[in-house]
Amino acid sequence: MERGLLILVSGASGTGKGTVCKKILSDMPEIFYSISATTRQPRPGEVDGVEYFFITKEEFKTWIAEDKFLEYAEVYGNFYGTPLHKIEERLSRGENVLLEIDTQGALNVMKKVPDGIYIFLLPPSLEELKNRIKNRGTETPETLERRLNAAKAEIEIGKKYQYVVVNDTVDEAVKKIKAIISAELCKTSRNEKIFEDLIG
Amino acid sequence: MERGLLILVSGASGTGKGTVCKKILSDMPEIFYSISATTRQPRPGEVDGVEYFFITKEEFKTWIAEDKFLEYAEVYGNFYGTPLHKIEERLSRGENVLLEIDTQGALNVMKKVPDGIYIFLLPPSLEELKNRIKNRGTETPETLERRLNAAKAEIEIGKKYQYVVVNDTVDEAVKKIKAIISAELCKTSRNEKIFEDLIG
Repeated sequence: MERGLLILVSGASGTGKGTVCKKILSDMPEIFYSISATTRQPRPGEVDGVEYFFITKEEFKTWIAEDKFLEYAEVYGNFYGTPLHKIEERLSRGENVLLEIDTQGALNVMKKVPDGIYIFLLPPSLEELKNRIKNRGTETPETLERRLNAAKAEIEIGKKYQYVVVNDTVDEAVKKIKAIISAELCKTSRNEKIFEDLIG
Repeated sequence: MERGLLILVSGASGTGKGTVCKKILSDMPEIFYSISATTRQPRPGEVDGVEYFFITKEEFKTWIAEDKFLEYAEVYGNFYGTPLHKIEERLSRGENVLLEIDTQGALNVMKKVPDGIYIFLLPPSLEELKNRIKNRGTETPETLERRLNAAKAEIEIGKKYQYVVVNDTVDEAVKKIKAIISAELCKTSRNEKIFEDLIG
């Protein structure tokens, strides 16, 4: 059984990671979206292992102690985290997993999953990124400047990724990411079985 | 100016390299097909630099002496060869070049152009390869066996390529090769200029 692909999509805030990932998942339903674990109560209709892994605070602390989280945070008294072992379970079953994560979290994943596919989304221009942040309407000139500088620092981190995709239009960006996935599945290292079948 | 891609397509004889490459070129006219040099006379309508580079025997011998050929052969008194410096000219102008070549020639190119994209076409099965060779109708049972063994040895060489594509149907194979080209153009190492434009 060939190990699945971990496809990690990251990028500076405001580059549209969320929209792009949603489109990929709707186009490629065979790809699993990495689910977070949380200690909050499930809302009506939420299913364990679908929206979240719902676990107790004790379990969450054990997972922290066992270094099972790629990242975690406390929000209003509840814990949220990205559990690596749940991703590994799927990969080892040959399933492909999509993970959308911020730039800091991504650096952590690179260390733990060196055979992952690391894709960095870029804004078409700084001007465009400025507009996108502005259009949220919540920034003062001062915080806008601060956010832009933070974005530049994040973009610098993008140089460490294998692939960069400019998010000019969502459709074009998604098309490129699908091409990257398709190409990665053609890597010789991921097709040893084909050679075995052909020439033993 | 970002250097162009050398896309090399190879595979055991009988796997359909020619058909696949023709389709890629008709779908992606912006890609240049690597042209051979020859010492034979141009036929009516043939243009230097289009069908072939038409050169004299003296030039051909100079190019051999200057190690300019990836491979060359003499056929009925005329010389034919694949000139690397002509490929390099296009790459350095940022143009992408497609090269269809046999497995032996490809190993030679790998040494000379380490940043090329090496794609190996595989038959869907040995049975299918046998049928394709048989259908040419020119083989005796003995030569068929010999050709199959040669094909197996060639397929073994495929393990040295970056990518493998099973030529199940031409359309599917072409789709995968286009995805590989698209993905390679997204490699971070090929997009340094984008970072410069964004963050200087």
